[in-house]
Amino acid sequence: MLTRSPLAPETFPDLAPIPGVELATAQAGFKYKNRDDLLIMALPDGGTVAGVFTVSLTAGAPVLWSRKALENGQVRAVVVNSGNANAFTGKRGVQAVAASVAAVAEQLGCDPQDVFVASTGVIGEPLPAQKLIAALPTLSFAGDSVAWAKAASAIMTTDTYAKGASAQVDIDGVRVSLSGIAKGSGMIQPDMATMLAFVATDAALPAAVLQELLKQGADRSFNAITVDSDTSTSDTLLLVASGAAKNVAIDRADDPRLAAFRQALDALLTDLAQQVVKDGEGAQKFVTVAIAGAESDWAARRIGLSIANSPLVKTAIAGEDANWGRIVMAVGKSGQKADADRLAIAIGGIPITVAGEVRPDYDETPVAAHMKGRNILIQVDVGVGGGQATVWTCDLTHAYIDINADYRS
Amino acid sequence: MLTRSPLAPETFPDLAPIPGVELATAQAGFKYKNRDDLLIMALPDGGTVAGVFTVSLTAGAPVLWSRKALENGQVRAVVVNSGNANAFTGKRGVQAVAASVAAVAEQLGCDPQDVFVASTGVIGEPLPAQKLIAALPTLSFAGDSVAWAKAASAIMTTDTYAKGASAQVDIDGVRVSLSGIAKGSGMIQPDMATMLAFVATDAALPAAVLQELLKQGADRSFNAITVDSDTSTSDTLLLVASGAAKNVAIDRADDPRLAAFRQALDALLTDLAQQVVKDGEGAQKFVTVAIAGAESDWAARRIGLSIANSPLVKTAIAGEDANWGRIVMAVGKSGQKADADRLAIAIGGIPITVAGEVRPDYDETPVAAHMKGRNILIQVDVGVGGGQATVWTCDLTHAYIDINADYRS
Repeated sequence: MLTRSPLAPETFPDLAPIPGVELATAQAGFKYKNRDDLLIMALPDGGTVAGVFTVSLTAGAPVLWSRKALENGQVRAVVVNSGNANAFTGKRGVQAVAASVAAVAEQLGCDPQDVFVASTGVIGEPLPAQKLIAALPTLSFAGDSVAWAKAASAIMTTDTYAKGASAQVDIDGVRVSLSGIAKGSGMIQPDMATMLAFVATDAALPAAVLQELLKQGADRSFNAITVDSDTSTSDTLLLVASGAAKNVAIDRADDPRLAAFRQALDALLTDLAQQVVKDGEGAQKFVTVAIAGAESDWAARRIGLSIANSPLVKTAIAGEDANWGRIVMAVGKSGQKADADRLAIAIGGIPITVAGEVRPDYDETPVAAHMKGRNILIQVDVGVGGGQATVWTCDLTHAYIDINADYRS
Repeated sequence: MLTRSPLAPETFPDLAPIPGVELATAQAGFKYKNRDDLLIMALPDGGTVAGVFTVSLTAGAPVLWSRKALENGQVRAVVVNSGNANAFTGKRGVQAVAASVAAVAEQLGCDPQDVFVASTGVIGEPLPAQKLIAALPTLSFAGDSVAWAKAASAIMTTDTYAKGASAQVDIDGVRVSLSGIAKGSGMIQPDMATMLAFVATDAALPAAVLQELLKQGADRSFNAITVDSDTSTSDTLLLVASGAAKNVAIDRADDPRLAAFRQALDALLTDLAQQVVKDGEGAQKFVTVAIAGAESDWAARRIGLSIANSPLVKTAIAGEDANWGRIVMAVGKSGQKADADRLAIAIGGIPITVAGEVRPDYDETPVAAHMKGRNILIQVDVGVGGGQATVWTCDLTHAYIDINADYRS
């Protein structure tokens, strides 16, 4: 049993019920004992869906299925299991997905194409679909905050706390709610998606609009976090909309009436993504890396990730060492344009460098004090353009090795 | 004081003296106490040189100098210090190099352009050139095996053992010798070069031929190792030739009379590169990752490095866990073409997967036994082409974090 991350929020937030969306969890027994490891989220007829998935070329069978299911933009169920990723499981993996989807579709009376699946856990072990199927009759659906909290727990693997976030906002005078859950702790460097995250809303929005909103939102949230630079075979982020709020019809993501919704969605995705990093395996410190002055926003993100993924930067942070020379190194290896003579590095808001070297009056005392805190801020201006990005990560500690030298057994 | 790596060779090898090449070391006192931290290698007039350097965009002042010095292909001295990288030191760093080079050139009576410099150690601290200059009158040059052993020790930083290799081979009937030393332990993912390595020969070869031989050799040796994916600001690999062997004039790297020399050089570079990995910070196991079936040799190397740099693969190896699912993950995130349904993974020579899933008769017992050894072999065929590469790395252990959470202080 892993110790709860010191960066965890004090309590799980009360997630707003989403009219039209119901949740059920069960102990299917894929790997864990005495805890729920299966979640089914059900939506009414007419629910719409958007998704982004791992870019891994060895993506698991559930990702392949869900990517295809996304084509018609409809959703009636999302089926999630923890403890087994059903990845690199060949034909048997594909069959396990098909059998699971067929059973859920039959129970809910819907088209299999409207059932999405996501699995997380060990790679390479066949998923026993019969365990999922056997659990179906025991499910009891509910939509309240308690059901959301149970859902957030059921999808955990090496997570040390359940992750959720919620918001309410108006679309053209109609109040709509958003609630989301996420899991993830290791094998985290999403690249178009995260480990697993599911966001539901009662807004009535066509799938194409949802997809555009989700893609933009994911880019500045889940695609801007890293724990260990390893991209999962299973990363899945789904946004489902029940339409129960019956707001005005909107057919473009850039419709000004969606501004508040978009802002709330972005904030919720960022909140969930940061919760994943704060549960980074072994994390003791939450690190914000803010890059400015890059050739483009994309280049800024690459530089930010180069710093955030550097084992030498991450171990220095774990050791509370203001070793800014390693930040110079990580900027240099990023492959992105930077002007070493204009490189401006600040830690905890305190400027350290000027004109390609350490400031003559640099006093490390306040920076060393900042390094002892839970929240570390690294700001870097690379001095070549207007590109900006913020990336979040955690430190690299002994506990990361303890967890991962021993996770499977 | 760090414990000697369990992967270290039992003793430092006897390096062959290189006629024309002399070495001197001294305690200049850049950072370390009671040990040599300065090396000067001197060559006679007419010495030729080849070099490859870090691709970092924040390369240190010594790299910038040496890259420029390489232009005329002549060398009279190589000056190396440990404990201070003289990187990100702005104008003061450039001035420190110029002052050091001028002093050495005056002492040896040569052109400053023929003096090469390399520094390794902490980034961002000004290099006190006066310490180097003050040490010059104390130097006593020699060319024997003892001098080579002292040279290999003088360039160490977090290394736990000195690294050297030697070979003798004929060029068109004339016996020539090669001796080389290297240092490196962390911040190791060379990309066109390594941390620091210096190879000397008495062969008479023009700089252009040396450069071609070195470039090819580096690609399959120093560019195929990684400890922690971090590319140094100081990586420098130099090959110097005194010409004392007076072999036949050769003006092309692909001259068949150079075949034995090229082979010996490649083997020597690979030996030194492997010694760096075997001294990887915290290393307990030496890992060979052999990739086949890739779209190209270049793609194979990217896949190999993706596996060799994955913190999850490296911690699994540290934990002696035959967690091949993480190898699947690392292939998938490499960005290179792979056919998941033809992916063949073997550990310790034992095939594990077939047709996109685990082999039906897979027995983990012998693989688990292999994982307990010091030398781990991972073979992956990605099933799309004829590209091959071999990459070497080490495991990721608690000691890596101990060393790096605490290196600077």
